[in-house]
Amino acid sequence: MKAFVMKEIGRVGFTHKPVPQPGPNDAIVRTSRALICTSDSHTVGGGIGPRHDLTLGHEAVGVVAEVGSEVREFRPGDRVVVGAITPDWGDPASQAGHSSQSGGPLGGWKFSNTKDGVFAEYFHVNEADANMARIPDDVSDDAAVYCADMLSTGFMGAEHGDIPIGGTVAVLAQGPVGLMGTAGAKLRGAGLIIGVDAVPTRLKLAQTYGADEIVDFTREDVVERIEELTGGEGVDTAIEALGADATFQIAVRITKPGGTVSTIGYYGTGEYVHIPRVPWGVGMAEKTIATGLCPGGRLRLERLLRMLSAKRLDPTLMTTHIFAFDEMEQAFEVADKKLDDVVKVLVTF
Amino acid sequence: MKAFVMKEIGRVGFTHKPVPQPGPNDAIVRTSRALICTSDSHTVGGGIGPRHDLTLGHEAVGVVAEVGSEVREFRPGDRVVVGAITPDWGDPASQAGHSSQSGGPLGGWKFSNTKDGVFAEYFHVNEADANMARIPDDVSDDAAVYCADMLSTGFMGAEHGDIPIGGTVAVLAQGPVGLMGTAGAKLRGAGLIIGVDAVPTRLKLAQTYGADEIVDFTREDVVERIEELTGGEGVDTAIEALGADATFQIAVRITKPGGTVSTIGYYGTGEYVHIPRVPWGVGMAEKTIATGLCPGGRLRLERLLRMLSAKRLDPTLMTTHIFAFDEMEQAFEVADKKLDDVVKVLVTF
Amino acid sequence: MKAFVMKEIGRVGFTHKPVPQPGPNDAIVRTSRALICTSDSHTVGGGIGPRHDLTLGHEAVGVVAEVGSEVREFRPGDRVVVGAITPDWGDPASQAGHSSQSGGPLGGWKFSNTKDGVFAEYFHVNEADANMARIPDDVSDDAAVYCADMLSTGFMGAEHGDIPIGGTVAVLAQGPVGLMGTAGAKLRGAGLIIGVDAVPTRLKLAQTYGADEIVDFTREDVVERIEELTGGEGVDTAIEALGADATFQIAVRITKPGGTVSTIGYYGTGEYVHIPRVPWGVGMAEKTIATGLCPGGRLRLERLLRMLSAKRLDPTLMTTHIFAFDEMEQAFEVADKKLDDVVKVLVTF
Amino acid sequence: MKAFVMKEIGRVGFTHKPVPQPGPNDAIVRTSRALICTSDSHTVGGGIGPRHDLTLGHEAVGVVAEVGSEVREFRPGDRVVVGAITPDWGDPASQAGHSSQSGGPLGGWKFSNTKDGVFAEYFHVNEADANMARIPDDVSDDAAVYCADMLSTGFMGAEHGDIPIGGTVAVLAQGPVGLMGTAGAKLRGAGLIIGVDAVPTRLKLAQTYGADEIVDFTREDVVERIEELTGGEGVDTAIEALGADATFQIAVRITKPGGTVSTIGYYGTGEYVHIPRVPWGVGMAEKTIATGLCPGGRLRLERLLRMLSAKRLDPTLMTTHIFAFDEMEQAFEVADKKLDDVVKVLVTF
Repeated sequence: MKAFVMKEIGRVGFTHKPVPQPGPNDAIVRTSRALICTSDSHTVGGGIGPRHDLTLGHEAVGVVAEVGSEVREFRPGDRVVVGAITPDWGDPASQAGHSSQSGGPLGGWKFSNTKDGVFAEYFHVNEADANMARIPDDVSDDAAVYCADMLSTGFMGAEHGDIPIGGTVAVLAQGPVGLMGTAGAKLRGAGLIIGVDAVPTRLKLAQTYGADEIVDFTREDVVERIEELTGGEGVDTAIEALGADATFQIAVRITKPGGTVSTIGYYGTGEYVHIPRVPWGVGMAEKTIATGLCPGGRLRLERLLRMLSAKRLDPTLMTTHIFAFDEMEQAFEVADKKLDDVVKVLVTF
Repeated sequence: MKAFVMKEIGRVGFTHKPVPQPGPNDAIVRTSRALICTSDSHTVGGGIGPRHDLTLGHEAVGVVAEVGSEVREFRPGDRVVVGAITPDWGDPASQAGHSSQSGGPLGGWKFSNTKDGVFAEYFHVNEADANMARIPDDVSDDAAVYCADMLSTGFMGAEHGDIPIGGTVAVLAQGPVGLMGTAGAKLRGAGLIIGVDAVPTRLKLAQTYGADEIVDFTREDVVERIEELTGGEGVDTAIEALGADATFQIAVRITKPGGTVSTIGYYGTGEYVHIPRVPWGVGMAEKTIATGLCPGGRLRLERLLRMLSAKRLDPTLMTTHIFAFDEMEQAFEVADKKLDDVVKVLVTF
Repeated sequence: MKAFVMKEIGRVGFTHKPVPQPGPNDAIVRTSRALICTSDSHTVGGGIGPRHDLTLGHEAVGVVAEVGSEVREFRPGDRVVVGAITPDWGDPASQAGHSSQSGGPLGGWKFSNTKDGVFAEYFHVNEADANMARIPDDVSDDAAVYCADMLSTGFMGAEHGDIPIGGTVAVLAQGPVGLMGTAGAKLRGAGLIIGVDAVPTRLKLAQTYGADEIVDFTREDVVERIEELTGGEGVDTAIEALGADATFQIAVRITKPGGTVSTIGYYGTGEYVHIPRVPWGVGMAEKTIATGLCPGGRLRLERLLRMLSAKRLDPTLMTTHIFAFDEMEQAFEVADKKLDDVVKVLVTF
Repeated sequence: MKAFVMKEIGRVGFTHKPVPQPGPNDAIVRTSRALICTSDSHTVGGGIGPRHDLTLGHEAVGVVAEVGSEVREFRPGDRVVVGAITPDWGDPASQAGHSSQSGGPLGGWKFSNTKDGVFAEYFHVNEADANMARIPDDVSDDAAVYCADMLSTGFMGAEHGDIPIGGTVAVLAQGPVGLMGTAGAKLRGAGLIIGVDAVPTRLKLAQTYGADEIVDFTREDVVERIEELTGGEGVDTAIEALGADATFQIAVRITKPGGTVSTIGYYGTGEYVHIPRVPWGVGMAEKTIATGLCPGGRLRLERLLRMLSAKRLDPTLMTTHIFAFDEMEQAFEVADKKLDDVVKVLVTF
């Protein structure tokens, strides 16, 4: 089969691989739609170290082609979405409620990290009963594929942020994960949602997904503006959706005492991330810093799909570009270089 | 001043009383709008025992007339909403996070219970800095008055129900508190909200406030229908918004193992409320039963008002009747006897 | 192999069965120690319906005899304790944090319910990597076997009770699970622990495990005495460890507003369990009712074993009787009929 | 009256002041015992900026001398302990469960910060009903005074650390607050407690208060040793009890994915506190960072006093030095310069 791989650090392209085989608990899925993620660029850039001919991609839907002997919930022909994170559910970390950390730090992240990803005609799903979900008839592949990572990660930002009904929230960066953090804040009942970015199309989308106020950080001082919007108090919850030290520091500054900094980005550079000591209340202002990695699992996916069935939001508004799998090199370039005001690139198979 | 009182069990009417005086921490508010609540009927019916010339009512907005020497946050002329529940914030129960229980069981409930209520030209607010909130200019009195009890209690039903994003919720009874429970479920991100009642106008309002499905209990078996709607699983959260034993039992039945029964009604009769043993999983199915009494406090009120400013919902759709304070006897009869498809009666001063 | 079975409702005895075989994810364990539980009596009495030649027992330790092809963590010869509850960890209920409810209400309870139990020379463990734990060298089989159910269930009572440091706790019934509820309350930092029972040896053990005060319900009114001990307030947490309607009602009465009734018993009779309406604060006193079924899993078992390694408590004090497996009929009679002040019967293989 | 004050940055001494007068909600307490805290040194060193003749001290017990008109719970002659932190309980931050942040960041910290402290013959207590507790007859002043700050702050470290029964905990630094963090970890049911320090007397006390293992950071690499003690996993909870950047970084490193860094120290220097990026799982390992400031309030104090009544621990083991108030200058020097292996200095009045 055809697979789009990281050949080595900095270089991508097509190759051919055998169709994978399932173990007793696994499934093989024939890919129908996939999305390109910023982490694919991180990986190709060397973020997780060298890889050789590793298939890229972790966001996909498809049709079940084959299942292992112990799989009970799925049959060939089922239309499914698969989590970007596919935990080992019996692992102690999963038993502790941290399935994304099963098998070690970030261990639930297997696709295009510790095994081949989804940018291929077929891909392999471990613990299939637990790591994928059937797509309801009233949800399209084009929408369902957003459940794999974007909805799950973005909403997690709001969930970890412990937002009270009527609370105040700032979402720093309005890329696709930040946009879903904005949507998540709305879904948890925030009373004031402030979206921060600089790209006009993203700020526009932020408003569509729930931002009551937008702040263009190239035009305004973010800390000052958010203090102004919150009567000098700061926000109950700051969602950091970029993974940048500077943004993290802003998040700590704008969070009120007793509030939460919920960070959902991948911090890719630097030896340290810096907590500004005095704004952090010299370690005594009860500003909690929460982090996380995209929750996976059938239950999570089913709940996210239910939100699409119920038309609570339309993630396909983020699809700015569509390519066929054969055009993957071009597609990857658009996503990687953030060409043409790209938000999200959908790949069809 | 003129006050509308419970003269004795079963009898209401106007009387005259002196305008109340504030202690050092208190305020006196000149009433501008009030709502009549089912609990007022309970009280008049003898639900909390005999009372003599007790001013009724606990949901009101008004203008600050006078403040005590220690009040820092408010000044005469401020337009404010006052919580139906006005806790003692220094009490150990408040320090434990259960302010509605300060001073003893349900001790935060003072209006028309342990002191005069709000159906009068003026009323007294204990710990004024902590128990009222300034109304923003963009929120009308007619809307703000719903924050005192209806929004706070209804939303609490959803909050105590621990609803996950995409979770399933049934709200049993769509009176004003149940309607706000329905709205609350939507605000917390439920993926399927089932509203149960029998009155067509209430079921219609339920849909407006967020119910994806409605069940008319006079036409369908509620347990069967909800099992059908949830694929046989039951709901993550059942909100019991009536305070009736029969409804409570249904709530236990329709909740899935690991789910929550969140009950927000006043159980007015019977020696016992009955948990059906086997549907409760013989005490081992991890179906939590949570209860509560309307959260009060400035912070809560400010957050609820923010939801109105942000136009997250419009509670005035529940106002089916409007009377002047002089017509209070007629107003009370409409509410008490549930005449004319009443949902909520607004009283103007 | 030899197995001690429920032949039909009301009748037990030995039989012979083939040694079980593991599926890919399973293990077979050669039994070395087992404990008899009150639920074994419930089962024989018909509590879960008719069974034919079902092997009894769910609390055991042993040595791994064989493992399936997918098992990674264990090898033949490993000395292990197996949870009484052996969940399906990939099930949505487990993903929601309610593994004991995987596969349906109480679905994690498989031993001597939906498959053969542990009163046999060998027994079968599903998802072996996730459902058993290696026993450290410094913990004896005689002690480790208590982790399977007694410690896990009893401690759960304290955990669900949400006990604050310095909080007040009453534990109703001091059978082995209640004793471990008492120990659990001590381990969570309760400041006043009240143990209730009537059997002198149990009350004595309650004091050993942490009860500051004991109440003999045959000599004192429990509600009055607990009110007296708590200055009229009631307790923060009442742990109901019997599974009886009358005890449950006491639990609701003695819990303060805002407190928690944590119930860990199996309610075996009656159509309803009764909540006393007025002591429950007419459904508004924020007295939460929490239930649960013994948490299983490797992580849980490892943590419990760590408590034994660290000598935090000695569960073998509860072993009042020891029998060889050949004497199982006599052993079962002692446990079943509660002869001779029995607390817990240990069976050696 | 005589008061021991900070005359200016770097200079302390006695002065005379008038006895304070209570407002309607306040009390005046005649001091009987006080403890000197490291924060007193921070303050004198200029940590919170310049002060002129500010009375120092925030840990004290005494006898009520006078109460305001609105005080209900206390009368002159009552023997009381007063919280180091005396929140405004009606403030929105308190209503949100963050009373230490009432009135702004760390706003509950009033003594020797925004008003005179307790190193005087009399001191003033705001919201007296809510901020002090009667000392039971079976608890000495010498013990009760530890409830004001040491027990409350140290235990908070364990509470915020979300320690599961049988969990693993490291407590970094075994000064008095760290020792109470160690005791708190024991009280929450940790299964392995590792105490880190370098002073032999402190490590010895750590063992007395519950440390199963001690690590002398001058002899061993802390990170390596803790990994070894936890089988390479790291701890569930790291309590940072020093307020130093280097120790904080160790805390992040030794915490397992999904675990919690609970920091209770005052970070006194540097523009930033540094999170090591990769050990933090590039912001995705679900290592929560929690902070806090000593919980105050009558409920908290009563619960802590109950722990002393019940003899759960003996804080007076930390009293290495006792001075009379007249010897305050000498006493302060011992504490400030950490002379003579001092742990805690008690001052008698």
